[in-house]
Amino acid sequence: MRTSVAIIGAGPAGMFLAHLLAAEGIDAIVIERRDRAYVEGRVRAGVLEQVTTDLMHRLGLGERLDREGLVHGGTQISLDGSLFRIDMAELTGGSAVTVYGQQEVMHDLFEAAPARGLRIEWNAEDVTLEGLDTDAPVVRWHKDGEAHELRCDFVAGCDGYHGVSRASIPADVLRTFERVYPFGWLGILADVPPADHELIYANHERGFALASMRSATRSRYYIQCGLDESIEDWPDERFWDELCLRIGPEAASRVTRGASFEKSIAPLRSFVSEPMRWGRLFLAGDAAHIVPPTGAKGMNLAVSDVMFLGEALVEHYRGGSQAGLDGYSTRALARVWKAERFSWWFTSITHRFPEMDGFARRIQAAELDYIRGSRAAQRTLAENYVGLPMGTA
Amino acid sequence: MRTSVAIIGAGPAGMFLAHLLAAEGIDAIVIERRDRAYVEGRVRAGVLEQVTTDLMHRLGLGERLDREGLVHGGTQISLDGSLFRIDMAELTGGSAVTVYGQQEVMHDLFEAAPARGLRIEWNAEDVTLEGLDTDAPVVRWHKDGEAHELRCDFVAGCDGYHGVSRASIPADVLRTFERVYPFGWLGILADVPPADHELIYANHERGFALASMRSATRSRYYIQCGLDESIEDWPDERFWDELCLRIGPEAASRVTRGASFEKSIAPLRSFVSEPMRWGRLFLAGDAAHIVPPTGAKGMNLAVSDVMFLGEALVEHYRGGSQAGLDGYSTRALARVWKAERFSWWFTSITHRFPEMDGFARRIQAAELDYIRGSRAAQRTLAENYVGLPMGTA
Repeated sequence: MRTSVAIIGAGPAGMFLAHLLAAEGIDAIVIERRDRAYVEGRVRAGVLEQVTTDLMHRLGLGERLDREGLVHGGTQISLDGSLFRIDMAELTGGSAVTVYGQQEVMHDLFEAAPARGLRIEWNAEDVTLEGLDTDAPVVRWHKDGEAHELRCDFVAGCDGYHGVSRASIPADVLRTFERVYPFGWLGILADVPPADHELIYANHERGFALASMRSATRSRYYIQCGLDESIEDWPDERFWDELCLRIGPEAASRVTRGASFEKSIAPLRSFVSEPMRWGRLFLAGDAAHIVPPTGAKGMNLAVSDVMFLGEALVEHYRGGSQAGLDGYSTRALARVWKAERFSWWFTSITHRFPEMDGFARRIQAAELDYIRGSRAAQRTLAENYVGLPMGTA
Repeated sequence: MRTSVAIIGAGPAGMFLAHLLAAEGIDAIVIERRDRAYVEGRVRAGVLEQVTTDLMHRLGLGERLDREGLVHGGTQISLDGSLFRIDMAELTGGSAVTVYGQQEVMHDLFEAAPARGLRIEWNAEDVTLEGLDTDAPVVRWHKDGEAHELRCDFVAGCDGYHGVSRASIPADVLRTFERVYPFGWLGILADVPPADHELIYANHERGFALASMRSATRSRYYIQCGLDESIEDWPDERFWDELCLRIGPEAASRVTRGASFEKSIAPLRSFVSEPMRWGRLFLAGDAAHIVPPTGAKGMNLAVSDVMFLGEALVEHYRGGSQAGLDGYSTRALARVWKAERFSWWFTSITHRFPEMDGFARRIQAAELDYIRGSRAAQRTLAENYVGLPMGTA
C-alpha cells in the first residue's frame, strides 16, 4: 500500500487530521491498534474549546454537536464553599466552551468517515515505523497474522502517550519535561441531573472537587483522592458525602444523588516531549504531551496540533514548500506550553498538595480571592479556558 | 506622659500614621529606638505605588516628590535577553509608580514633622509594652539612663520585623506564615545614569537581575546571588559583567559602568503574622509582614496598613465606634495577602530556583511568553504593580 500521510492512531488527533486532509484532497490512511468500539468507548474529556467546535463546524461535523452540546458561557469557582462565577462569554467577547463528550466527538468523526472515503485500518498489531529519517517512511503491522506494509511521504504520530510514534524517535533527540502530581481524580458518571448548568471547580481544605456533566440528565463528578486509594474505598454514598462537603452547602443543595455506572481513578500528570517532529514523523496530541484534566485542555490541544499540522501538509502538497512542516514543532509547542502552564496553574490553585504549608494555602486563597475581585484576572482565566488564539508562535 | 496613640517606630509606617493622625487632630507620640540620621539613612525601597503618592499629596508632602520623583508609566521585562514592555498607565487607566527612595520619603516626613507638632521620642532604649489587653496600655523605655512612661489609649506597632510590638503578643494568639527563598539580592548604588528610564526585570538562565535607579544620575542595580556569597566575591567589574549578561545585549548596551558606593546582599523572605491586632495593639508594616523586594510592595503595604488604621482611629475618636478598629486586621490582611501573592508570584517567575527542573523552567518561560502576548495578563501584572485598590476586604 502507499499513501501520502500515514496516520498512526484513530483517536481525536488522528481522526481530526484524517478529516482535515480528506477535505483538502490529500490522501491518508489511519492505522489503529484497537477496534472502533474500543476507541469510541473510552471515557475521556468532555469540554470543547471554541477552536475545537469551530473546527467541527468547518468540517461539517457540527450538526449533532449543535443539537446536543451544552454551550457554557461561564464557569463557577468555589473557595471553601463560597461560590463566584467567571463570565467567560462576556470577558472574552463571546467565546464559550461546549460540553460534549469525547465519546460523542469520536462517534461523529467515525460516522462521517466512510462517506468521505477515509480509510482506517483497524486492529493493526505490532505497528513499527521505519525510515522516518529518509524520504520514504514505511509503516508495518500485522493483522490476523498477516504482515502489512504502508509506504508514505509523512507519518503523523497520533497514537498517544504509550504509542509507538514517540518511541520511534532516538532517545538522544528527545527532551522530555514532566510533573507528576501527588494525587488523583476519582470520577463517577451517574444518570442524575447535574447540580448546576455550569461547571463548579471547588477548592476545599479537604481537597479539590469538580461538578460537571455530560448532558441534562447525566452528571460527571470528580473529587481529588490519594494515589494509594482505590475505587473500593469509595462506595457511592461516601463519594456523594465527600463531594457535597467540598463543593459547599449552596451547590450541594442542588446535587441529585444516584447510583454511579462508571467509577475510576485517574492520575494527574504534565508531560511534554520536544521536538514534535523528527525527520518525516510529526507527533500530535497525547503522543507529544499530557496535561492534567483541570481546565480540560487535553483533547483541545490535540485538535490545535493537527490544525497546525494539517495546514503545513496542505502547504506542502499545494506548493511544495517545506516551511510549514519545518515550523510545525515550534509553532505547536508555543501553544502547547501555554496550555501546559494554564493546566498546571489551574491545578495548583484548586488542589490540596500534601506538602502545602500554611503560607502556600494562604497564597492559594489570596489568588482565588484576587480572581474573585479582579476583572483582569478573571479575563486571564477565561481566555485560557475557552482556548488561547491559535497564534503563530 | 499621656497621649491617645503611642506609635512604636519612626519608619514609614509610624511616620505616615503620625502625619495622618496629626491631620485629624488626634494626639500621638512616636517612640523610636534609634536617631533620625540612622532611620533616614537606611537604604530601602524606592518605588511608590499610586496609593502612596496620593497619600503624600493628601498630607501636603508631595512638593519635592513632584519635583524629583520619576514617574514610570511602564516597566520592562527581559526573558533570556529579549525585552518587552508593560504599559502600566495605559493598562490601568492612568495609574503609575514613582521612583523616589525611602530615604527621600523619610526625609520629607521628618522635615514636615516639627511644624505640625508631631512629637518623636528618639533613642528610646528597652521599649516595653504593657497592659495591651486592658483599657490602659503603657509604653515604657529608657533614655540616657532615665526611665520614661507613656500612657495611651492605643498602641500602633510600627517597629518592624525585629521590633518589640509583635513580640509583645502572646505566642498562642499569633499564627505566622513564612517562605524563605534560596537566594539573595546583591545590590549596588552607583552615580551613573541608569540604563533605561524605566525598570528592567530580567529572567535569565543565570538568574534574576533588576536595572533600577534613584534619579537620572544615580543607578540601582541588583542581581540574584547565592546565600553563601558575600560582597567580597563581587568586585564592581564582576558585578557589571554579570548584570550585563543577564539583562541581555540590548539593555546592556545602554549600561554606564562606574564605581559603586553602596553594595550589599539582602535575603528574600515572605512573612505574615495574623491577626494584626491584639487588644489595644495594632501592627502595621514590617512588624506584621515582609515581602520579597520583587515588585517593591514593602513600604507601600506599610502605607496602606496605616491608612486603614488611621481611618479606624479617626472613626473611633470622632464617633466612638469600635467597628473600624475591630475590622482593621481583616481589612488590612486582605490587601496584605494579595500583595504577598503578587510579590511571591513575581519572584517565582523571574528568579532561578536551585530546585528548578526543566519543566519548571519551561513553565516560567511559558508564563512570561503568555504575558508578552496577552493584554489581560499584562493588565493583571500592571494593576498589582501600581497597587490594587484599597478595597474593603
